[in-house]
Formats: sequence, C-alpha cells, structure tokens
Amino acid sequence: MKPDDAKLAELEPGLEGAGIVQAGNAGASGTLAERLSPESRLFVGLLDSFGTPPLHFRLWNGESVVTGTGNPVAAMYIANRSTLLKLLVNPELHFGDAYSDGSIEIDGDLVQFLELIYRGLQHPSFFRRLRRLSRWLNRRQPNTLAASRENIHHHYDIGNDFYKLWLDREMVYTCAYFPAPDATLEDAQVAKMDHVCRKLGLRPGETAIEAGCGWGALALHMAARYGVKVTAFNISREQIAYARERARALGIQGRVEFIEDDYRNASGQYDAFVSVGMLEHVGRENYAELGHVIDRILKREGRGFIHSIGRIRPVEMNAWIEKRIFPGACPPTLGELLTILEPMEFSVLDVENLRRHYSLTLQHWLRRFEDSKDAVRAMFDERFVRTWRLYLAGSIAAFNTGDLQLFQVLFARRTSNKVSWTREHLYQR
Amino acid sequence: MKPDDAKLAELEPGLEGAGIVQAGNAGASGTLAERLSPESRLFVGLLDSFGTPPLHFRLWNGESVVTGTGNPVAAMYIANRSTLLKLLVNPELHFGDAYSDGSIEIDGDLVQFLELIYRGLQHPSFFRRLRRLSRWLNRRQPNTLAASRENIHHHYDIGNDFYKLWLDREMVYTCAYFPAPDATLEDAQVAKMDHVCRKLGLRPGETAIEAGCGWGALALHMAARYGVKVTAFNISREQIAYARERARALGIQGRVEFIEDDYRNASGQYDAFVSVGMLEHVGRENYAELGHVIDRILKREGRGFIHSIGRIRPVEMNAWIEKRIFPGACPPTLGELLTILEPMEFSVLDVENLRRHYSLTLQHWLRRFEDSKDAVRAMFDERFVRTWRLYLAGSIAAFNTGDLQLFQVLFARRTSNKVSWTREHLYQR
Repeated sequence: MKPDDAKLAELEPGLEGAGIVQAGNAGASGTLAERLSPESRLFVGLLDSFGTPPLHFRLWNGESVVTGTGNPVAAMYIANRSTLLKLLVNPELHFGDAYSDGSIEIDGDLVQFLELIYRGLQHPSFFRRLRRLSRWLNRRQPNTLAASRENIHHHYDIGNDFYKLWLDREMVYTCAYFPAPDATLEDAQVAKMDHVCRKLGLRPGETAIEAGCGWGALALHMAARYGVKVTAFNISREQIAYARERARALGIQGRVEFIEDDYRNASGQYDAFVSVGMLEHVGRENYAELGHVIDRILKREGRGFIHSIGRIRPVEMNAWIEKRIFPGACPPTLGELLTILEPMEFSVLDVENLRRHYSLTLQHWLRRFEDSKDAVRAMFDERFVRTWRLYLAGSIAAFNTGDLQLFQVLFARRTSNKVSWTREHLYQR
Repeated sequence: MKPDDAKLAELEPGLEGAGIVQAGNAGASGTLAERLSPESRLFVGLLDSFGTPPLHFRLWNGESVVTGTGNPVAAMYIANRSTLLKLLVNPELHFGDAYSDGSIEIDGDLVQFLELIYRGLQHPSFFRRLRRLSRWLNRRQPNTLAASRENIHHHYDIGNDFYKLWLDREMVYTCAYFPAPDATLEDAQVAKMDHVCRKLGLRPGETAIEAGCGWGALALHMAARYGVKVTAFNISREQIAYARERARALGIQGRVEFIEDDYRNASGQYDAFVSVGMLEHVGRENYAELGHVIDRILKREGRGFIHSIGRIRPVEMNAWIEKRIFPGACPPTLGELLTILEPMEFSVLDVENLRRHYSLTLQHWLRRFEDSKDAVRAMFDERFVRTWRLYLAGSIAAFNTGDLQLFQVLFARRTSNKVSWTREHLYQR
C-alpha cells in the first residue's frame, strides 16, 4: 500500500501554519521544506493533521522537529527510514510494532504521549481517513465458535504466572471499582465484585450463571459471600483449571461449577445472568444470539448484568491492539449493546460508566508490570515487555481521553417488578 | 374499516380452548357458539387473543361472559351494540372514548383491569395486528415548530387551576423520586429535583439551560437552592406566565429567565443542559436536531441530563392517549434516546430507570384527582373526569406492566474528566 499522491500534495500547505519549528543539528535557517528530507516532510505533514501536539521528534538521520506550542511532553525517536515509511502507511498498526521491537523509543511519559495521539485522532484528519482505509483492508472476521476459542487462547492462555505478576490477589482482569481513588487495587477489585453482586440483588439460595468467568474470582465471590449457586463458563483452559483449583482450596466446589465451554451452549434457568469483560470478545454479529441465550436462561424474575468496555461511536478497535493483543476484540457503543437487550424486551434498569475507574485500574497494573518487568523479560523477551507496556499505557490513554468507555448495564424482564426500589443500597457500607 | 373475514375465521377455533365460560342469564346449556350473538362471539374471540384474563363482561342485551380462570378482578359493562362493534374495529382508541362517554363502565379496580389488558397486549395476537393496522391508518404527523405549539397547547394550557387540584405544591408534572415508597408526593418531587441537580453536579455560579420547564419548579429549585443562573424554555403560555410569577414571588427573577419559545431557538453556552419530561413531545424525527442543539449550547466540560418516559420496543404511543391526551407524544426506547447523544460523541455516564416511581407518582395523582372530582366536573364536565381518570389509571397500569419506562440519562462530552468519581454523593442525606 502506498500513500495517495493527491492526498500528500494536500498536506503540504499545512506545514507552515502548523507552528512547527525545526530544532535540528544544523541550526535555524532556510525554509522548513528545504531543511527536511522528503520523508520527514511527509511525516511532519502527518503530525500537522493531529492539530500539532507539543512533541519532540528525533530521526535516525539527525533531523529533529518540535511540533505544536508549549513544552514537549515527550520525545519520540525513530530509529530508521523503514519505520518512518511504515508509520506513513499504517501508523496505528506500525507504531505499536515499531515500539515493540525498539525501532521507536519514547523519552518521557508514555501515557501522556499516547493521550496526545488519541486526542489528535479524535479530529477528522488525513490520519483518520488513512486509518479507515487500512481498517477496511485489514477488516476482521466474524467470531465463530472455533475462532472465539483461538482468539481467547491467544490472549488468556499465555500463562497464569505472567498475570499473577501484576494483577491483584484475586486475579481479576477487568475494571476495578474504587470507592475512593486512593483505595488499593486489591480492595477495589473486591469492591467491584460487591458492586456487581449488589446491583444484581443476589440472595442466598439463588442460582447465577456467568458467561466468561476469567480466573473465577467473581464466581467464587458470589458463591462464598452471597450464598449463590454458580455455573461459570469460560473457553480458556488455563483459566478454568486455575478457577477449579481455587474452588477446591476454598472448599466450595459443590457450590460453583466451572465449565470449559462457550456460553452459547448454556442450558437451564437462573436467577441471575452475569458477564464481566466478555462482551468485548463477542462481536456484534453475535449480539442477537447472545440476547436469545440470555432470554432462554433467565428466569421470569431474574436479573441480568453486562460489564463491558465500550465506545462512543461504532468504530473498530485500535488496529494494533486487535492484531497483537486482543484478536477479535470489538467494544460496542451503548446503543449497540442495547441491541442485545431491546429485541428481547429486557428493561434496562441501571447503566453506570466507570471509564475513569478503568484508567486507574490500568495505572495500578502498569506500575506493577513495570515493577516485574525483569521477571516478564525472563519469561518471554524484551519485545514482549515493550508490547505489553504499550498496550497498558495506550489503554490508560484511551480511557483518559474518552476513546474507550466502561459500561455496567443492569437489566430485567420488563414485566418483573422484583427490582430494587432505589440504588441507595449500593452505597451502604 | 371492517375486520378482515379471514382473520375473524381464524379466531373461531380458539373459542373452545380459551377457558371461556358463559355465565349469562340463560343458565349453562348448549355450546358457546349457539348461545352468544354473532357480535358477542367476535368479541369473545378478541378477548381470547389476550390470553384469557379473568374478567367479567356484561352486555346491553343481557349476555354475560366470564373469561379466563380465577376470580374476575373487575366487570366491564358495554352499554350498546355500536360500542361493541367499535371495540372490534379499533379497541385501543374506542375503549377510551367509550369509557369517557360512559358507554363502557368498569365495576372494580380500574388499574387492575387495565393491567390485565396491557399484559394481554404484550403477547402477539390478533389484537396486536389490528392495532398495527389502525395505527398505520391513524399515523402521526411530524412535530414541526407550529405543530409542537398546537400539541403542547392542547395538553398544558387547559388551565393551571385544574392541575393545581391534584399536582404537588410545586406543580411538578413529571415522575417523582421516592427515597422510600412511603414518602409524601410533596417530598418526593423535591427529592426528584435534588436527585437531578446532584446528578448534574451543579455548582454555585454555574449556568443551566432547561428545555421544557413546565411550571418552572426545577428551574426555580436550581436557582434558589443550587445558586445556578437558569435559562428555561417552554412553549406553553400559561405555564411560562405562572413560572415568572413564582420567580417574582421568590425574589429570584434576576437568576432565572423564563423564555416563551422553542428550545431549538436557544443560544449561548451553558454548564448544564437539563430536560425533564419534554423528550416525549419531541418526536424521533427531531432527535438529530436536538443532539445538535445540545452540542451547540453545552460548554466543553458541561453536563447534560434527559429525563423521559420510554419504551422497551420502538412502538407508537397508545392511540387513545395520543389522540385525546397527548397529541404528538412519542416515548423512545433507550436505544432511540441514544441516537440523540452518540452521533455528537456524548458519553453516557449514568442511566436510571424510575418506572416504578412513576407508577407511584401516578397513584398519588389519581387519588388526589378522585378527591377533587367534583371540582373537576364543575370546571369541565363528567366526560372530562372520566377521560382523565382513564388516562391516569391507564398510565399506572402501563408503568406497572413495563409497557412504559422512565429513563434518567446523564451525559457529558467524552473528553471531559470533570465528572463524578462515583454516584455515592447522590445518596448522602
């Protein structure tokens, strides 16, 4: 794929008005166009379309450019010409790959740098048009049962020991709920599970089904603390094995059943349906089916709960994240999420957006990850360390800038009046 | 319009399986088909399609039918043949009209009777198909500025004195918020206004714009209790005059401006946008425009709030309510409501469903209305009393059965991080 010449020509007039100054090794004289190599001019044109964030760029050939106004929050080093050209062709994908292999280096705060990039992306631009094209060329395949298994294996079966290094004690790999911002991550994950259980209004003796149970923390929490009989589905073999072992260790294996299977194969009827951090993997083409599954397995006065990363607009996941980290991932808008529920006549009772809580959760994860980076490098390699650092930092930036949202949605059948009178009980300590 | 013969023929086989018994003046002998007149057989077939609720029907000719199993919750008397035939053609519209003019009488609990009818309507049936046809024949016109004025005048300008008889002291004609079910209506309306102001996170010195302000209670509350400078729009002349008078009486006319105009003509920029009970009148064809108006008038870190009656599925308002009570009314599903916000990249922060609170609010209104029925009859006539009784009772039934919902939606620009950390502050007394 080669950038369109007409588009590139369009960029050139923007170079002068962009507040871009050259701060390279040759001192300041001559026009910008003269002093930069052709590929650098293209690159600067691309940056211009971001709305000129204050950044410092250093190139392998000694060229150096400061964009925008104010002090640069970070410096980006591009190690070779090939990396620069790839950034021009598919910046979203190749930035990540180049960061992973070290041909891009960021000096300064990685999260702040990425926030500037995300903010830039929020404006219509050449970059955005390019992104759309590269997305179309790399469009994703539907999540069949087989593809789901492969996608989930890619991310979750890379080893429980790896996740143990930086997740909380309960191994909860979804957004925590911090009653106050200074709560510990351990406390915030327990508070999240209580928040979910309270929203569902779980009562002892009831039955609950969980679709996508991770390492089993919530299923175990519902069984042990709320006296609920739980059936939990997951297609990740390593996670299921870990969850079963924990149930045995806690002596509650009779109250929580972990099933290594797709939630779509669930049967029976339950008082509560819960799914935390699974919808991102479901794919919009499967929403109608998910709605039918929930309708089939939820009792007449049952309650349902979906916790999912979301978006504001129906656009695809970041191309690099989808390719390298979460194949098949696809966070919905709230409107898209409702297409699961409205056709089945479910009544939405409560929606809470925990976007900022996910940013804070990720900040805890990134800090712990950095503290364990030597251990991670020993398990995998430096490229893996850099890939995951970028994924965690990029996710913080995405939640901080509103590029990603976190929706918790509580629902019930529209005919059920067995729902909480107010939400005050969620906040009683 | 004449019922389709093929459809009617389809109904007949259902007569026997429906658990319908004849309890008429002639005693029990002979088959059902022999003992009922042809129009009564049609009517019973129609009832059958409801799923046979336990009801007692008495006809002008002495025929008497008990449907369903169990004790009938109410008896319905149909005074003449013409009423019965009209019910067959357009039951939704003509039931209301016939009740209003007294050619239908209900002995027993009107709300319980209507709940049975609403529950019947929730199942696909002949009745539902008929409803769809009659709706198409009577489909509504878009809400232009001129039509909006006419529609709003129809309902809200029938006299402040009438509404004073049965609304709360503050004249709030929208769903109240009852911290506990035994709260008084007066307290619950004040609690609702506080609930809204807290969700919006109003701070002294901020500016708020209200679209559709009724008699001004919320605008006055925001100005007087939260120190906010309010600009409030309404196209009902009588309501605006009342609201201005109250502002003068409270001595806060400098802090709250009541504008007799359409919200679509609003200008300026505000910290908060609020609309309580107006969206029902907007019409889906105007949602995109409403989104643009909010986008135009909301500051970068402003918050927005919409409180509206809603639906589970995108169907039209009850035909009779729309024709006789609320011309142009059109409650959206939550998904439809989001089509106002998502295209403008607003981030939904909180959705609360107060369906049961609206039922309770209406129960208070109906009780007060019945207590004042002599005064209402003196102002208008008996037909008016019966029309409004049916509207209030029918609305209780609709909220109890989930046919109607009440959504409160809080939102902000997706890039704003000036939003509440949790919702706990809503519940601090």
